[in-house]
Amino acid sequence: MKSSSKMITFLLAATLFNAFASAAPRQEPIQPIEAAKVENPAKVELGKKLFFDPRLSRSGFISCNSCHNLSTGGSDNLPSSIGHNWQQGPINSPTVLNSSMNLAQFWDGRAADLQEQAGGPIANPGEMASTHDLAIEILRSIPGYVNEFGAVYGNSKIDLERVTDAIAAFEETLVTPNSRFDQWLKGDNSALTKAELKGYELFKNVGCVACHNGPAVGGNSFQKMGMVAPYETDSEVEGRSAVTGRDADRFSFKVPTLRNVELTYPYFHDGAIWSLEQATDIMARLQLGRTLTKAEIDSIVAFLKTLTGEQPQFKLPILPPSTPATPRPQPFENKPAG
Amino acid sequence: MKSSSKMITFLLAATLFNAFASAAPRQEPIQPIEAAKVENPAKVELGKKLFFDPRLSRSGFISCNSCHNLSTGGSDNLPSSIGHNWQQGPINSPTVLNSSMNLAQFWDGRAADLQEQAGGPIANPGEMASTHDLAIEILRSIPGYVNEFGAVYGNSKIDLERVTDAIAAFEETLVTPNSRFDQWLKGDNSALTKAELKGYELFKNVGCVACHNGPAVGGNSFQKMGMVAPYETDSEVEGRSAVTGRDADRFSFKVPTLRNVELTYPYFHDGAIWSLEQATDIMARLQLGRTLTKAEIDSIVAFLKTLTGEQPQFKLPILPPSTPATPRPQPFENKPAG
Repeated sequence: MKSSSKMITFLLAATLFNAFASAAPRQEPIQPIEAAKVENPAKVELGKKLFFDPRLSRSGFISCNSCHNLSTGGSDNLPSSIGHNWQQGPINSPTVLNSSMNLAQFWDGRAADLQEQAGGPIANPGEMASTHDLAIEILRSIPGYVNEFGAVYGNSKIDLERVTDAIAAFEETLVTPNSRFDQWLKGDNSALTKAELKGYELFKNVGCVACHNGPAVGGNSFQKMGMVAPYETDSEVEGRSAVTGRDADRFSFKVPTLRNVELTYPYFHDGAIWSLEQATDIMARLQLGRTLTKAEIDSIVAFLKTLTGEQPQFKLPILPPSTPATPRPQPFENKPAG
Repeated sequence: MKSSSKMITFLLAATLFNAFASAAPRQEPIQPIEAAKVENPAKVELGKKLFFDPRLSRSGFISCNSCHNLSTGGSDNLPSSIGHNWQQGPINSPTVLNSSMNLAQFWDGRAADLQEQAGGPIANPGEMASTHDLAIEILRSIPGYVNEFGAVYGNSKIDLERVTDAIAAFEETLVTPNSRFDQWLKGDNSALTKAELKGYELFKNVGCVACHNGPAVGGNSFQKMGMVAPYETDSEVEGRSAVTGRDADRFSFKVPTLRNVELTYPYFHDGAIWSLEQATDIMARLQLGRTLTKAEIDSIVAFLKTLTGEQPQFKLPILPPSTPATPRPQPFENKPAG
């Protein structure tokens, strides 16, 4: 072998080695989020329309996107949501982003999956305040939807199962890959600053990672809010015990995802805390019995901000129009004309 | 000249003549809508974010898009809109689509242009219920906006003039070209059916076109609602006289655009009428003193549905997050916790 070809072989091997080294996924308690694989684009498009359609509410004003606003981290950035007739919801709206990774839906896990969840707010008198029957009757009266259900499901029957199936199919696409933290997880050493990396080490060493782990950095267990010391709140919500009936599950909630946490303020099930610094401080004290210094808090928050991923990018859907046969919205039926 | 080349010359001339004939714009009292010319895309993007930003409202829940929903013809498809604390608005929300062509803004024309209009709902206690000062303070506290105003305007000052200038720049792009009627206007004989064309002829002959003309098929004059016979309504709104102070202007309103009228139900300033057939019947009787037959009404409605143009296509904007310094939304300040 001539020396020039030896050199080429060496360079090639070195390049391959470097490529492998820098691309090696890290073994960490948090895993990267992968981009959504869309298997049925027509169903996703239909689900997107339904997600944005205010006619699923009694008023004709509130859509899924009203409280899970995809312009603002899949949440409404309010302590608790505004429902029909401006009713105040009892709990903070969790983000819809990456929600397909949750072990169950709602803070108390009362819905097994996204499809089961999607039917809830439509018929909740404090939220969209419609009924499943009315929502389905409305959709059946809209020729554009009849055609689209036919194209997606093979016949044009519209029922709650299909409506929630399509909404869930859209929601499954609402993942946020390629955060700087994920780039680092996948082997890009330059993706995080030293300060951010130090924050991640602290996040693990302090013990946050015990609950906030997996691809969603949470969402995969129920935990008591106030393990070491009770959480003081005006909220009367008791969490998981409402589902299990077990006293031991009082104040137990699904651990929220920390993905995009910079966007999903205010924090906790009561939405009482507006800054990540304060939320981190409270969590360390109440869940881990640790009082963090300001420098430690800032360090962890620097890491948390690297969890903001690429937000779902899509065109605002154009909804098919109602017809004179469509049941009319009832925004003010119990109010005098103003 | 040989006969074959004569034939080619003849065919060429015939082709050119046909091309010219079919492409010749028609001279009609309605003109086609042209696609938006975007001169400053960065300003339009900023305006789009502001249009979708619920932080311009006191509650943090209502954005421009709440009542001028670009998924539903730039309107909310409600008789009158839902404002802060679920207040009922006094008048139907006009579509924002093609609104740059209006001679003035609002039903009573009290704003000269889109920029002047944009400031109104933000500070209207019955609508977004914020103040201009609060809205500006909120935007100034959001680093993403500070950067974006700087990039668009050369420095990062944020004030009401710039906010409304950017919103107006976005709204100017909200035109709906290429409706089937416009294709016909531009010379495409196959764009309309014979029935639709007959409807247009009737629309002109009956006299609708006297007020509904120009590119927006309306929007360019104020007219009394109830020229021949009074319009019966529960609405107490008196229209243009509130601006001019002249008794002669009572019940005078800006003639609404008929562009996309299939999408912008319910109709009239009180939003009391849900079908195009009924609206056409009422207009003919009250404005023109004509009682149309069912066949005539159906014919005109067939024409009206050809006025639905291409809806604005754009990605849902992703909004820059607030910070702990951002004044918080006040959705329930006067209500007990629920």
